[in-house]
Amino acid sequence: MEFVTGVKKKETLELSELLEEGRIGTEVKVNGAIHTIRDMGTIAFIILRKREGLVQCVYEEDISKFDLKDVKEADTVEVTGVLVESAKAPNGIEIRLGELKILSEPAEPMPLPIAKWKLNTSLEAKLNYRPISLRNIRERAKFRIQEGIVRGFRDFLYKEGFTEIHTPKIGAKSAEGGANLFRLEYFHRPAILQQSPQFYKQMMVGVFDRVFETAPVFRAEKHNTKRHLNEYTSLDFEMGYIDGFEDIMAMETGFLQYTMELLKKEYARELQILNIEVPKTDNIPAVRFDEIKRLVSEKYDRKIKNPFDLEPEEETLISRYAKEEWDADFVFVTHYPSKKRPFYAMDDPEDPTYTLSFDLLFRGMEITTGGQRIHDYHELLAKMEKRGMTDEGMEQYLSAFKHGMPPHGGLGIGMERLTMKMMNEDNVRETILFPRDLSRLEP
Amino acid sequence: MEFVTGVKKKETLELSELLEEGRIGTEVKVNGAIHTIRDMGTIAFIILRKREGLVQCVYEEDISKFDLKDVKEADTVEVTGVLVESAKAPNGIEIRLGELKILSEPAEPMPLPIAKWKLNTSLEAKLNYRPISLRNIRERAKFRIQEGIVRGFRDFLYKEGFTEIHTPKIGAKSAEGGANLFRLEYFHRPAILQQSPQFYKQMMVGVFDRVFETAPVFRAEKHNTKRHLNEYTSLDFEMGYIDGFEDIMAMETGFLQYTMELLKKEYARELQILNIEVPKTDNIPAVRFDEIKRLVSEKYDRKIKNPFDLEPEEETLISRYAKEEWDADFVFVTHYPSKKRPFYAMDDPEDPTYTLSFDLLFRGMEITTGGQRIHDYHELLAKMEKRGMTDEGMEQYLSAFKHGMPPHGGLGIGMERLTMKMMNEDNVRETILFPRDLSRLEP
Repeated sequence: MEFVTGVKKKETLELSELLEEGRIGTEVKVNGAIHTIRDMGTIAFIILRKREGLVQCVYEEDISKFDLKDVKEADTVEVTGVLVESAKAPNGIEIRLGELKILSEPAEPMPLPIAKWKLNTSLEAKLNYRPISLRNIRERAKFRIQEGIVRGFRDFLYKEGFTEIHTPKIGAKSAEGGANLFRLEYFHRPAILQQSPQFYKQMMVGVFDRVFETAPVFRAEKHNTKRHLNEYTSLDFEMGYIDGFEDIMAMETGFLQYTMELLKKEYARELQILNIEVPKTDNIPAVRFDEIKRLVSEKYDRKIKNPFDLEPEEETLISRYAKEEWDADFVFVTHYPSKKRPFYAMDDPEDPTYTLSFDLLFRGMEITTGGQRIHDYHELLAKMEKRGMTDEGMEQYLSAFKHGMPPHGGLGIGMERLTMKMMNEDNVRETILFPRDLSRLEP
Repeated sequence: MEFVTGVKKKETLELSELLEEGRIGTEVKVNGAIHTIRDMGTIAFIILRKREGLVQCVYEEDISKFDLKDVKEADTVEVTGVLVESAKAPNGIEIRLGELKILSEPAEPMPLPIAKWKLNTSLEAKLNYRPISLRNIRERAKFRIQEGIVRGFRDFLYKEGFTEIHTPKIGAKSAEGGANLFRLEYFHRPAILQQSPQFYKQMMVGVFDRVFETAPVFRAEKHNTKRHLNEYTSLDFEMGYIDGFEDIMAMETGFLQYTMELLKKEYARELQILNIEVPKTDNIPAVRFDEIKRLVSEKYDRKIKNPFDLEPEEETLISRYAKEEWDADFVFVTHYPSKKRPFYAMDDPEDPTYTLSFDLLFRGMEITTGGQRIHDYHELLAKMEKRGMTDEGMEQYLSAFKHGMPPHGGLGIGMERLTMKMMNEDNVRETILFPRDLSRLEP
């Protein structure tokens, strides 16, 4: 028997430790994967890939105590050597190699040139070799930024008094949803995968006042577009005691402001690798659905085809308008038509053909849908009846309202879409580790 | 068009703001749900439930400017009044009510006495009325502690250089797993729900060195016990460049140490509500599987029935032994027999019938399985062949190894089980918001 007492400092150093003051001129021990080797004859540059970035090591025939021929790309190694300054090396440092120990070896050479700065490979090839293509420095940096977005969402909401919840993804069939649900058998009973934590987060507003969840959602939509995924991560929150849906937009703006600062502070390296400037979030315009439709139609001389919904092209034009007129990357579109919103959306008492709801557009794409919900039991029943819905599978949801719910509202943010637009990608598959779409079920 | 500029401070105060210095004697505005009303004739105590706790309000016939008859339990309200000290009230304060505005009303009275301190109701009834039973102060406190556990997991791992990942839950059928998988149809192709992010997190070690995920997993096990769920949240991490599986146990110990401090600091209120003392985590004993089996068998005079696995009763005895002999709530059991571990577990070179793996037991129950994994491609293929496995559906997983993987290992922690044992509950359904088991698919 031995006691485990916690994490012990290792002898091997990470990149940020190599960059600490006082390291230059000392012997250091470092591990990593061999990203690339440039053999110049009597010397060679061996670049190690570490989680924080690249470290240049120099092999010198007279000094290094190993045979360069024994080393190849994709080996993982542990090296020792003297740390020196080097203006041309990544981060301005390099290691003059003494010893090198091989920890593991690949069985075959790389199928993709991952050591290139830009992986000029088709999206298809990148996805077919996902565990390999992500080893490219720029590819993996995208997912560090994505981490920062989710982390910012949670940290901001903790600070604002929200409680994190974990709700089930397998559920019973209900009167809501329908065609877009994946179906499965659950111990001889029909079940579905949840397309949103909507009902659960609303029920939990009655318990914790403010809740959030960051979890997968499942949509069996047969869309094969650059913006749709059949499984994605949804950043959801729901909050009680609101004065109006404006409180939800204010909270989302607060999240964006907090997160952009977090990215600048904690993910500066990755922002630089991807050459990204964070968008402005201090003033986000909010404009009515019917008004912006009219404004865009006038300015860009485009006929309004569907007065009840936004077409993708219209979303692009609204963002263009917001950029041109208000210098804004984000724009809230408010008061969506009631017939296009789910039954639980609160209708505008001033004109019930519209709802107290909004979408947030970011650089031409909807990344959020949110709004105020109906909180009165009888009102909710009446709206369900008006839509010809039964309460099948919704008994528990309705019971929360039957026994009292505060005025509340919330939203859902598509994590991959927000990441995609942050880095100006044009396909959402670029910003999900392992996409699920009509044709992709693997890896 | 208007600009949204972020979160604005509301006039209404939260509990922690009421407790700030200088508030006593001032008029305050507060909202909340009416948890309970005690009518004493000319005065009445109206207790508000807020997210941070209970606030006592006093109705006085002569002073309060509303009719007590208009107010009932489960109304949500906004009140104004003078804040005064009151030794007997929760948190030592109460509000002498002036005005009261009703924000929403229930349609029916409560089906459960949620205002009682201990909800003396069967687990069955609590689960049948889940959105209501969780409004009980003690019930909801459990899930605040659960939030702290997950938050501690993430914050500790960020600090240790891990990257958070989001991996797909729908996947193709593979040679691993089998009977315990939920099956579904994915656009006319057979698919499964992932029982673990194992393959994905290993692949991502080749990219980020250290990764974690906190997400649902799905197990179609037909166990109907107090410790099994068919959907639960798994706290997973995987790390590269380890010297041995001891590094994994050290990291888990570090997580537990960090999290217990976080709970004491940020969740003290909930620890107090539930009367919980956090377990000691400074020294966690680690003992070999075969050795602890023998020790327990000798000390408690119990015959070893199955030398390859631990029965639930044995887990209880091992924890009892650890408590009696080492004053430990947690105990690592190491070197599990190879035949009981999955193919990717690394066998102990000194005796390949055992593996370089471990379970962590906490107060009589396994809450973690972890260990070192095979990182060499040929070794992995050989072990699969030995077990008669094909590489069907595992081509991408294997390709990560083919193209080089560092020595690595990791673990998975059952969030609900860890929460359950923290609060000395005896059924895991007590510590999940909406359990999924053989009979429960709703709410």
